[in-house]
This record gives sequence, structure tokens and C-alpha cells, in this order.
Amino acid sequence: MAKAIPSRSENYSEWYNELIKKADLAENSAVRGCMVIKPYGFSIWEKMQRALDDMFKETGHSNAYFPLFIPKSFLSKEASHVEGFAKECAVVTHYRLKNAEDGSGVIVDPEAKLEEELIVRPTSETVIWSTYKNWIQSYRDLPLLINQWANVVRWEMRTRIFLRTAEFLWQEGHTAHATAEEAEAETRQMLDVYATFAEEWMAVPVVRGSKTPSERFAGANDTLCIEAMMQDGKALQAGTSHFLGQNFAKAFDVQFLNKQNQLDYVWGTSWGVSTRLMGALIMAHSDDDGLVLPPKLAPIQVVIVPIYRSEEQLGQISAKVKPLLQELRKAGISVKYDDSDANKPGWKFAEYELRGVPVRLAMGARDLENGTVEIARRDLKTKETVPFDGLTERIQNLLDDIQQTIYNKALKFRQENTFKVDTFEEFQEQIEKGGFLLAHWDGTAETEEAIKDATKATIRCIPFDQEPEEGVDIYSGKPSKGRVVFARAY
Amino acid sequence: MAKAIPSRSENYSEWYNELIKKADLAENSAVRGCMVIKPYGFSIWEKMQRALDDMFKETGHSNAYFPLFIPKSFLSKEASHVEGFAKECAVVTHYRLKNAEDGSGVIVDPEAKLEEELIVRPTSETVIWSTYKNWIQSYRDLPLLINQWANVVRWEMRTRIFLRTAEFLWQEGHTAHATAEEAEAETRQMLDVYATFAEEWMAVPVVRGSKTPSERFAGANDTLCIEAMMQDGKALQAGTSHFLGQNFAKAFDVQFLNKQNQLDYVWGTSWGVSTRLMGALIMAHSDDDGLVLPPKLAPIQVVIVPIYRSEEQLGQISAKVKPLLQELRKAGISVKYDDSDANKPGWKFAEYELRGVPVRLAMGARDLENGTVEIARRDLKTKETVPFDGLTERIQNLLDDIQQTIYNKALKFRQENTFKVDTFEEFQEQIEKGGFLLAHWDGTAETEEAIKDATKATIRCIPFDQEPEEGVDIYSGKPSKGRVVFARAY
Repeated sequence: MAKAIPSRSENYSEWYNELIKKADLAENSAVRGCMVIKPYGFSIWEKMQRALDDMFKETGHSNAYFPLFIPKSFLSKEASHVEGFAKECAVVTHYRLKNAEDGSGVIVDPEAKLEEELIVRPTSETVIWSTYKNWIQSYRDLPLLINQWANVVRWEMRTRIFLRTAEFLWQEGHTAHATAEEAEAETRQMLDVYATFAEEWMAVPVVRGSKTPSERFAGANDTLCIEAMMQDGKALQAGTSHFLGQNFAKAFDVQFLNKQNQLDYVWGTSWGVSTRLMGALIMAHSDDDGLVLPPKLAPIQVVIVPIYRSEEQLGQISAKVKPLLQELRKAGISVKYDDSDANKPGWKFAEYELRGVPVRLAMGARDLENGTVEIARRDLKTKETVPFDGLTERIQNLLDDIQQTIYNKALKFRQENTFKVDTFEEFQEQIEKGGFLLAHWDGTAETEEAIKDATKATIRCIPFDQEPEEGVDIYSGKPSKGRVVFARAY
Repeated sequence: MAKAIPSRSENYSEWYNELIKKADLAENSAVRGCMVIKPYGFSIWEKMQRALDDMFKETGHSNAYFPLFIPKSFLSKEASHVEGFAKECAVVTHYRLKNAEDGSGVIVDPEAKLEEELIVRPTSETVIWSTYKNWIQSYRDLPLLINQWANVVRWEMRTRIFLRTAEFLWQEGHTAHATAEEAEAETRQMLDVYATFAEEWMAVPVVRGSKTPSERFAGANDTLCIEAMMQDGKALQAGTSHFLGQNFAKAFDVQFLNKQNQLDYVWGTSWGVSTRLMGALIMAHSDDDGLVLPPKLAPIQVVIVPIYRSEEQLGQISAKVKPLLQELRKAGISVKYDDSDANKPGWKFAEYELRGVPVRLAMGARDLENGTVEIARRDLKTKETVPFDGLTERIQNLLDDIQQTIYNKALKFRQENTFKVDTFEEFQEQIEKGGFLLAHWDGTAETEEAIKDATKATIRCIPFDQEPEEGVDIYSGKPSKGRVVFARAY
């Protein structure tokens, strides 16, 4: 049988593209850089959304919705913000089409030109802070803890499904606080929420840390991030949380009366994760047979395939399976019984492997006789024949085990591909092989830039768990007090 | 105490605007015609979304996501479609800003002009059918049952929060079928889903029917709708479901091999409801004291307000309330205990009335002694003192009763404001007072237009339950076989 997708070792990049296509996750659309998220891919994203949304609400946040469009003048109000986003934004200049007078078709109506151009939001700090000005008068109005699920547009020149698209879906939290301390605590809290989600739901271990000043969000005083390692040893930034200081409050004049009855500017944070997480999920776990999904995010956790030679046999198998379906669903397990006769069992096996369904049950005539069933796990590709009785509990345990095993495997991979390097020669050699490189850095943007130019590696973060260690910068030889994480990144 | 909002009889329009503002539902943004949906308003919308989404999934639909942008040429492919939407669409023409050379600020970079302009989707038939072309080859790929939750933009000249905004949130279902019959059945099924949602969740009775040809969706062969009556007697179209025939399949060349192995064009439907439903919900039930919410859509179903004179009393009340909170939550009832000392009980009562919380409990020192609690219902504004024991069951029943009572009230109002009229004179007189007018129509667009010009009333629908009745058109005097529903509408 021909392989459905190229192997990772052959061509990692093609493997990723083909997997997305064959597993029916998404595809490029007719609109440059914009993707179509297909039903199966979207159902995974919905599970992510639900889990994250619950976590946001548990930490006291509410959802709201702000306009898609941002007046050009708003974007310009925070100097470094516009600097960061002006080069890649979609601009609405007109509000009407009309029939061309020469009959050549529909054209933009030049008379319907907007007085002020509107930017399709690349992120919503500006439009949100312009709104917060009216919502915040006193410390009693704080903290303001709001999240938005939305689409945003950044006109990227080189795009890649899920990882870098012109339009993507995300959530963006925007909070306002009375003190710097509270805002900083919020920034850290939300990074921890992201890390928990990545590790406990996506089964992707992450390094938590701070970005260097040159990698910060445009308009932030500090950017915290989680960084994950993909199977090719490259890093993927999986979520960021920004301490905005009083920058946007000052840009939009958002002041409040504090407890001492004095006017002060409000402190802000913003934080977001996007459909990029879909790319991380795929690249962290999947193999040459297709998607490997952690059970907590799998739209279908268990598939049951009957193996039969006659309608009668199918009837007997179905009679046995039906109560099991009910029992599994009652236990909160999503299960699909695929008794369609359009495809053979072998085809179905391959298809559900491709789609990353964590557990597959197969049941044939002999199983009926023996009161057994064949149970296969997607992650390790092992299978065994087990008693039909007690299946629900067995499956529950198996799903837990798969979730943990996938995480452990990814963690082990990261550990094996994380290296302490002490010379630039070592650095250059190792970076070609991939992985996270723990190296000393002198803290200057110049050195950071020089290393990037020479090796395409960036400082992914200054990890929170950085150990104090005297050393010298691998490039400049200047003193350093601890190692940072370098890697090539998506 | 000054009234929080104008009364409906004073100024219905101002009542609506002020209610939305004071109940913290939404507000106009700095961007022309675009609204900000505030957290409390959004939490109602989220409840609507969840209920609808569950219904879509129960009827076999999956969610997906398609691009925000539509190439201008796509919009033009279906002739009546572009005719319908060209006059009100936001057009993206550039993809970059830059600093003006004269230092005057940030301007659109003329060098970053798009080769083909992009339209911000006013609806997604075109971009979706261009995608379906690649997804559908054979009858085995059908039916394709997809829904999308998204924002859309229609550049309306006169906007009104929730009812008519330049950007709004909605869901749009887009399905593809092998036969006209299947597509027609789907069109009707989804209209029935909307009607069920409106009646059972929103407690808003609706008339189901077909639009006249001139009121159809641009590109549809038939448009079905549900029409609700607001408290000022005006109609509000609350949802539409379109039978698209093969129009979009032909425009985008979507053909399939049918069971007879012949190539044929695919049959389509589309259907949608939007944040407009928030407007319907508000205007159908609310009163001069604020919002009245049906319990099924209320973010807070029960609020408990302690009435105390000392910290000690508050402690005693809280001790009594805490187990109740747990019990109510366990029963799936969302409850808030407002023991904040920032505001007095009277202020809290008014605030929760304004926000439409269906049930309010108040508990004071005497209640503690007597083992009672005061229970008030928002809809009828009645209250009584009842035993504390057995409260959970009492509240469950009360919530059910409120849901039904609100619906019955709205139904009675509609019945009392629906009139059979047989002459144009009667029609003209009655239309000024509002309501649904059941009148004979000759079936021509000319008469429909003339009546609209003369009275501002439109044919809301040809109701499914139209009784066959010989008559004459109220305007033209030509023969008619049944009455249609006329009204002024939002």
C-alpha cells in the first residue's frame, strides 16, 4: 500500500502540509494567505476554545466583542505599536462597488471613499483602550478583565497553514488594573494558564520565560511567552502575555481616581493564543501515519470498526456494540461506530490513524464467540485482544495513559534535544541539527542580532527557571549571569 | 427616585437605546456603525450561540471557518447576488501603511495596492461555493452540512445597535445536496430550528412563512423566514433560510456525479441568524424598569440579596445562603449572591431588575428567625415570602413558569395585535397603530411596491398556515387566494 503522506525524515515540511490535507484539517483558500479550516480541523479548535474559555472564566474573565475595524488614527496613537503593525495591515478605503460605465464589470465606486481609512484589526489594543476610557473612572471599576474571541489579519508575505496566515482566529485578553503589581500578576497568571493548557490539554511541554526587549510585543513593557519544541527541533512560540505598563492608557488617556483620590493612568495587560496552536499540536505529536491527538482534544476518542462477512454477522456485532456506545457516552467519552459498508476495515483503520483517533476497537466473528475485542492505541501503535466486559473502565484508563504517554514522549524529546553550549563554534554546529541551545548572552540587542544574522537562531526566551551562573557570551565574550534559550523557530 | 430609562409609551425608540446602555448590553463604538458588545450583553449572546450550536449539531451539521475576505470577482459571479450586496460593502484596497514623507503621520502606502480588491464578507456564499467545488465530486460527498460562526460587514447608512449595524455577528449555514427535494427539506428544517429556538429559548412566538420574490435573499430561489412582533407592533425578521436552487453551483461550477453516473449541478441552501436576535429579545419582553429575560437565556437566573444591619447578621445570612448556592448550582441554576457592601439593597434590586434577572431572593433578620425568604419574579413584579426549605424545587418550577408566562404574554400581545383587514382604508388606518395586518394580495410586485410606498408596510411573509380564502387585493382589487402578513418592520 502506498504511503498516504511523506515521512518526517524525508521532508518534514511536506509531511506537515500533506498531513493537514489528508487528515482533512484545513486548506489554502482562493484568497491569498487565508485558510479554510475544515470541519474536522475546526472540531479540534472548538475543543481548544472550550477548554481555554473555561479557564479564562475560572480566573474571572468575561467575553465581549469589539469592532473589526480600527480607524487609522487609533493605530497611530501608540508609537511603537503602529511601528510594529503598519507594514502588514489590510486597509479598507471604500464602502461601495458599482457597475463600470464601460460595462466591464463591477468596480470600486470612487465616490464611496472613506474619510478616514479603516484598518482590519491586527490586534485590538487600540480600539479596546479607546473604549476603556469610557468604562473606567475609579478604582472601583478595576480590575477590568475581558477576553475576546475573534479573527485578526496581518498581511504576512510568506504564509503557512495554521502557523502563519494572513487571517487567523485567536482570543485576545485585555485587562486594566489599578497598580503595576496587579497587572504584572495578571500577565504572569495568564501565561501560566497557557502553559497549563499546553501541557495538560495539548500534551505539549513548554518553557516559560520572558522575551528579550527586541522580541517584545509592539507597545509592551514586557512580553512573557511559552515556547514548545517541534519534532524537527525547531521552536514554536505557543502563547504570549504582555505587560503593557501604562502605555495604552497614556495613548488613549485612560485615567482613574485611585483610593487616595488621585488621578492616575491605568495599568494594562494583553495576552493571546491563536489557531497557531493547531500547528503546534500537529507538529509536536504526529507521525508518518498521520495525526496523533491527545485524547483530551480528540473530537473522536474511540472508533469502533466491525469486521464482518455477512449482514447477519454485522447485526450480531452491532447488537453487542450498541449498549457499549451508550455506556461510553454516558462516561463522557466520544465514540464513533463506523458500520458504513462503503469502505473495508483496512481502509477505515488507515483513515482513523490518519485522523489521530486515540483508540480503535475492532470486533469480528471470533471476538463475538470469545467475548473479546481488539483494542489498538494510536500513539504507540500497539494492539491487544481483551475481554469485552469492563471495557469502559479500561478505555477510560487507556485514554488517561495515552494523554500522559504523549506528553512524556514530547518531554523526553525536548530533554534529549536541549543542549548547553559554551562556544560559538559548538553553537553553529548544533543549531544545524536543531534543538534548544542553552547559552550565555551578554544582554545586548547587538549580540542577539549578530547571532541571529549568523545562525538564524533567535533567543526564544529568558527562562523563568534560569539558574544563576557566571559565564561569558558565546559571541561577544562579554560577561553573562545566566543562560537563555536559543533556537530556530517557526 | 428618578426613572432609570424612558418609558415605552413616552418614546419607544429612546427606551430601547437607554435600556441597552443602562443594562450594560452594548454601545456604539468609535467606528461608524460598529458596536461594542459589552460583557453582560455578550454573555446572553453566548447562551444563544450555545443553544443554537447544539441544535445545529443535533441536525447533523459541523462547524468550519472560511476567509473573511472575498475577491471582488467572486462576488460578481452570481448576478443577483452582487446586485444585492455591491452597494454596501467594505473594500480592502491596500495592505500596508507607511510614514508620510512630509512627517504628517501614517498614510496608506500607494505602492501596496492589491491587484484585486477584497470585499469584507457581507455573507459567504461565494467564497464557500468556490471551496465546495473542490470538496464535491460525487453523490457520496453529499449532503455537505456546514455552519460557520463569524462576523460580517454590510455598510448600512442608518444603523441601530443590534438591529442594524455595519459589522454584526452571526452564524451562516451553507449546505449542498444531490436533489432539489433534499435541499428544500433542509431549508425548511433549518427554519423550523430557528422557530423552535425563538419560541422555546427566547420565548418569542414567530410566524413562519415565505418571503415574496422581491424580499428574497439576493441569489435565492426561495427565502423562508420567521417574523416576530415587537411591543410597538412592528415586525422583526428573526431568521431566514434560503433555498438557493443551483444558482451558486452554476456560478462556481460545482458539479457532481449522481447515482445514475451523470454530471449534475449541486443544490444549495443557506440560513442565518445574527446578533439582531438580541434586539428582538430586548424589544419583545422588556418593560419600563429594564430588561426582562427568559430564564433559559439569562446569564444570572437567580440573585440573592442579603438585608442586614450588622456584620454579624450578614454572617448569619451568608451561612444560611451558602449551602443553597451549592444546591442551586448543582441543579444547573446560575445564581449570584450579591453580598457586596458597596451598594444598598434598594440599589441592587433596581440594578438586577434593569438587567432582567428572572428571580430575586431577599433575606433579612426576620427571615432568619422565621425560616423564610422573600422571592420576587422579574416578569410579573410580584413577590411573596416563602419557606426556606424546598427552595430549589420551588425555584426550578418558578423558572419554568416564568419562561412560559413570558412566552404566553408575547403570544397574547401578538394575537391582540393581529388584524384581518379588507379595505385599503382600514389598512391605512390600522397600520398607523401597528400590528400584523392579514390582508389579501394579488401576488404582483407592483401592488406590493405601491402599498409599501403608500404605507411603509411590507409583506413580512406568506404564512405557511395561510388559509385558502377567495378574496380581492386590498389595493388593486384583483383576485387573491389567501391573506399575507403585512407590517411595518425593523
